[in-house]
Amino acid sequence: MAHVFDDAVAVKPGENGVFHAHTHDAYNNMVGPYGGITAATVVHALQQHPDALGDPLALTLNYAAPVANGAWDLHTEIVRTNRTNQHWTFRIVQNDATVSTGSAVFGPHRDTWSDTEAVRPEAPAPMEVEDKDFPDFIAWDKNYEMRFVTGWLDGSVKTDDSTSTVWLRDRPERPLDYPALASMADAFFPRAFLRHGTYLPAGTISLTTYFHASPDELAAHGTGHLLGTARAARFAGGHFDQDAQLWGGDVLLATTHQLVYFKDPTT
Amino acid sequence: MAHVFDDAVAVKPGENGVFHAHTHDAYNNMVGPYGGITAATVVHALQQHPDALGDPLALTLNYAAPVANGAWDLHTEIVRTNRTNQHWTFRIVQNDATVSTGSAVFGPHRDTWSDTEAVRPEAPAPMEVEDKDFPDFIAWDKNYEMRFVTGWLDGSVKTDDSTSTVWLRDRPERPLDYPALASMADAFFPRAFLRHGTYLPAGTISLTTYFHASPDELAAHGTGHLLGTARAARFAGGHFDQDAQLWGGDVLLATTHQLVYFKDPTT
Repeated sequence: MAHVFDDAVAVKPGENGVFHAHTHDAYNNMVGPYGGITAATVVHALQQHPDALGDPLALTLNYAAPVANGAWDLHTEIVRTNRTNQHWTFRIVQNDATVSTGSAVFGPHRDTWSDTEAVRPEAPAPMEVEDKDFPDFIAWDKNYEMRFVTGWLDGSVKTDDSTSTVWLRDRPERPLDYPALASMADAFFPRAFLRHGTYLPAGTISLTTYFHASPDELAAHGTGHLLGTARAARFAGGHFDQDAQLWGGDVLLATTHQLVYFKDPTT
Repeated sequence: MAHVFDDAVAVKPGENGVFHAHTHDAYNNMVGPYGGITAATVVHALQQHPDALGDPLALTLNYAAPVANGAWDLHTEIVRTNRTNQHWTFRIVQNDATVSTGSAVFGPHRDTWSDTEAVRPEAPAPMEVEDKDFPDFIAWDKNYEMRFVTGWLDGSVKTDDSTSTVWLRDRPERPLDYPALASMADAFFPRAFLRHGTYLPAGTISLTTYFHASPDELAAHGTGHLLGTARAARFAGGHFDQDAQLWGGDVLLATTHQLVYFKDPTT
């Protein structure tokens, strides 16, 4: 039996670089699909392309309009293939309107000198931390274990620090791959919620993820928990950024950045 | 007399969202133009578009191939304009080939609750720090004061920490605007240089900048020095990311992220 994640990211190749996709109710957010499952579907589709070079290295996805539940088409174009990288652009089209735009870079993860300067946050073992559920009107999180070490949205408590650190894993377990990383990179609720101790109107405008993990590192990780940590740098002018890291053991698997729109609760 | 930066980012509007641009020798890098001046020219062009909504909020630029010295065309498209944001895609075309792709989000900086969680690095006053010059075969840095507080590339000294913190300012002085921010966001040489204590073959593949500053904040900043700080999170597989912040006084003006290709010196 296929994992629900595989059902959700499934695509059918069409003509001229088009892939046919469909939203999956199990990954619904408050309105339309969870942004992470859209990103995962894009990564999965590009990997299916017969001319894809190597692995995903970078993905930018701009959420121009809400994706409605139902069918959508991904229009892809390989703009340029170099020896060490390949540049893609794409659009998500629904009912003849573009609802998202984006770009991706693929290429081989070569064997080179490596080092990690980022420092993994301290955390107790996953099973020592409580698995949290979002409210029932959000579906997608039911497909994840989300064991919050810090930064769970707890009632109406305002905080000074927007950091969340959380153990993440597919529920049921599933071996880690690039689409799964793309999805989990968006698993951190808008940081303004934490600061104001409440849900607010907020939505990702633009998301960029860098995939540091090699295929061997993904295989070595298997179905274990990832440690994710996210924080905002600045809230101002109706927007904020949030940066996150996804760790598998001591391996920094991905870093991700997004710009988020929010509606000010104080005006 | 126009500032050399204004000459370098000058564009001529054409038909159907095309802008005609030209590289400027004063902003040459080792091969072709400095990536920051290309980003600045894109931002400047989009701002000239009669249908532009508000200010730059986010920019992603994918460097698919080197830009050759000479004329280039920017092909822009406004994909969607919402009430609070506007989504653009664009391409840089030279001799009928696409050398860069990208996307931008524009919108108003609205008056909302604001807070900054990032912490500005400690630094002595700008004039207490020495202005450094890159080697003569690099031109663009001659248009910037670059007063390195930490992380100057000093001979063959290897380091364990890829952080550079530097006071930046146009030389001669020039009032800060969004194109200038877009350029300075790319002013941090590849972090692998610091780690290996030497220049290496390296190049930005994809650059994303979030513009937090409002027009009023830019005006208030004027021609003062910006404090920039940059660091890598992980080097692996022939690539690394580097993240940077640009501060004007206590105001976090922009945050920026890039994925960089590098050639391993040890293999």
